[in-house]
Amino acid sequence: MIAAKGYAAQRANETLALWNFERREVGAHDVQVEILYCGVCHSDLAQINNEWFPGIFPMVPGHEIVGRISKVGDHVKGFKVGDLAGVGTLVNSCRKCHHCEEGLEVYCENGVIPTYNALDKYLDNRPTYGGYSNTIVSDESFTVRIPQNLDLAAAAPLLCAGITTYSPMKHWKVGKGHKVAVLGLGGLGHMAVKFGVALGAEVTILSTSPHKEADAKKLGAQHFVVTSNTEEVEKVKSSFDFIIDTVSAEHDFDFYLSLLKLDGIHIVVGIPPQGFQVKQVGLLQLGRKSVVGSASGGIPETQEMLDFCAAHTIVADIEIIDIKDIHAAYDRMLKGDINYRFVIDMATL
Amino acid sequence: MIAAKGYAAQRANETLALWNFERREVGAHDVQVEILYCGVCHSDLAQINNEWFPGIFPMVPGHEIVGRISKVGDHVKGFKVGDLAGVGTLVNSCRKCHHCEEGLEVYCENGVIPTYNALDKYLDNRPTYGGYSNTIVSDESFTVRIPQNLDLAAAAPLLCAGITTYSPMKHWKVGKGHKVAVLGLGGLGHMAVKFGVALGAEVTILSTSPHKEADAKKLGAQHFVVTSNTEEVEKVKSSFDFIIDTVSAEHDFDFYLSLLKLDGIHIVVGIPPQGFQVKQVGLLQLGRKSVVGSASGGIPETQEMLDFCAAHTIVADIEIIDIKDIHAAYDRMLKGDINYRFVIDMATL
Repeated sequence: MIAAKGYAAQRANETLALWNFERREVGAHDVQVEILYCGVCHSDLAQINNEWFPGIFPMVPGHEIVGRISKVGDHVKGFKVGDLAGVGTLVNSCRKCHHCEEGLEVYCENGVIPTYNALDKYLDNRPTYGGYSNTIVSDESFTVRIPQNLDLAAAAPLLCAGITTYSPMKHWKVGKGHKVAVLGLGGLGHMAVKFGVALGAEVTILSTSPHKEADAKKLGAQHFVVTSNTEEVEKVKSSFDFIIDTVSAEHDFDFYLSLLKLDGIHIVVGIPPQGFQVKQVGLLQLGRKSVVGSASGGIPETQEMLDFCAAHTIVADIEIIDIKDIHAAYDRMLKGDINYRFVIDMATL
Repeated sequence: MIAAKGYAAQRANETLALWNFERREVGAHDVQVEILYCGVCHSDLAQINNEWFPGIFPMVPGHEIVGRISKVGDHVKGFKVGDLAGVGTLVNSCRKCHHCEEGLEVYCENGVIPTYNALDKYLDNRPTYGGYSNTIVSDESFTVRIPQNLDLAAAAPLLCAGITTYSPMKHWKVGKGHKVAVLGLGGLGHMAVKFGVALGAEVTILSTSPHKEADAKKLGAQHFVVTSNTEEVEKVKSSFDFIIDTVSAEHDFDFYLSLLKLDGIHIVVGIPPQGFQVKQVGLLQLGRKSVVGSASGGIPETQEMLDFCAAHTIVADIEIIDIKDIHAAYDRMLKGDINYRFVIDMATL
């Protein structure tokens, strides 16, 4: 086994603290990555707090992992020592089902293995531990290449916030001539703006906060609409081809559906804990509209997204933190006091 | 003006009774249709009872109209006296907007004109009156040809129940190799079964009522699943490409989403008055699923549907009633005591 250290919660709702643990040996198809940066995702806090399901503890969160390959297994073909590499939200899947064969491992019919807070039933049935750590061992099939031209720390959030917005935008074919509204301007939302613009769409940020306008425009969005401003809202009624909805709190779906045009698609990538309600089905029907969901993305598409980012020089807007400040970062994240993603400098571990 | 008679509600919630009224003169682009049969739609009762919005009274309901052309305007090209013709859920639209130009008049950007309970703002601003009547004057652009080989009375419900299910099934490309579940076995549901089978899909009827199995199978469905039977339900989890949901009462969307496979689409054509709720967004996201809505359909597609029905000898399963029995029919409709659509024989008016 390989000695590792990381920040872990020993039990649900507990403060993260230094923990020494073990990673598996580097197998024939594995790479070992010395973790340099790890992004901080809302889901890290949700899982520490058992908000989704009873978690597996001790828990080392983190699934926006970038670093440098320090060791490769005998049969590894795609990586060599010294390469930049990333690990995102998943580390294994059955690799046999129809979805896995199509590169949609995140939708594995037999169950995907998340990067932390899971037992890897396809390997050794041991818990997976995430990226708030100095090192990780990962199958090369679940490891991606980080393009050299991207700022490494700012590339980390691409592994979750990036792919989670990129994947549905590509799947539902966001592109030139489309009007795209982005709802919620956090880690996911700000990436959706960047991807929308890069894909050639006309992007509007819908916000409850007028003071976010200047920052929002800096991201490249062409328009900014304050949703409490009736006059501005009236102008964008029935106007959007897509809404990329990254909000994880309760919000009024009927209102947003009214902003979609014929065949408009409301893409839900946030996780409102109570789900959502459409009170008037006519809002869907009298415009042949859709409400759709999407998980992060498969490995081939994650690589495609990174290469797209390299070609368009897209990274996340980040604030680098020391790992000891993780709980202060969570507090600010909950208040929305961040533009737009925290990334842990793993040298501070 | 043309003297007409029909069954009308003089005020909301009132009993329908014989009413003499006037239709407009046959204009240059109009046809006059002697109505032979008119289907009875749930929405007729809903609108008489002001369930959707304050209605326009006196109200002559009915938008599943078939009959024979008795007069044509000077510039009419597509019809001649004696032709079989139909009028469905809409009788006018702006004819200028992008959607109208694409033949999607039902989604007219400036507002479609329903066949009854509307003011025709594009024509004379007078109320539209529906098909519980002996005659109707209709623009030929909003009139469809009824194929000769179809039973005329049984073709009437195609004009609403038919197109409302056909249109989304075509739009979302239901076809060979797909597993389709139909939810709710009324006027719309039984048409969805017939279209699904004709389109080459494998159709399962999901029902709360075990006693419907024999009737359901007669419609051509390959499978029948009672939703309270846990064992049967377990077998169809994550299995359907499409759910055609024709239920207009509250029901559990989370449950039905769990029956869809990756990229599955839940098509809502029923009108649950309270709308719907998705309590766990993960059910959408962890399978890239969609909840979508669709209105009836445009005129070209309505004609296409009728021609499809002619080619596959598809009509509705109906029970013909005298117009004096319309309220008894409504009562049975509300109880679900019908296989599967009432059609009024207009000779009884």
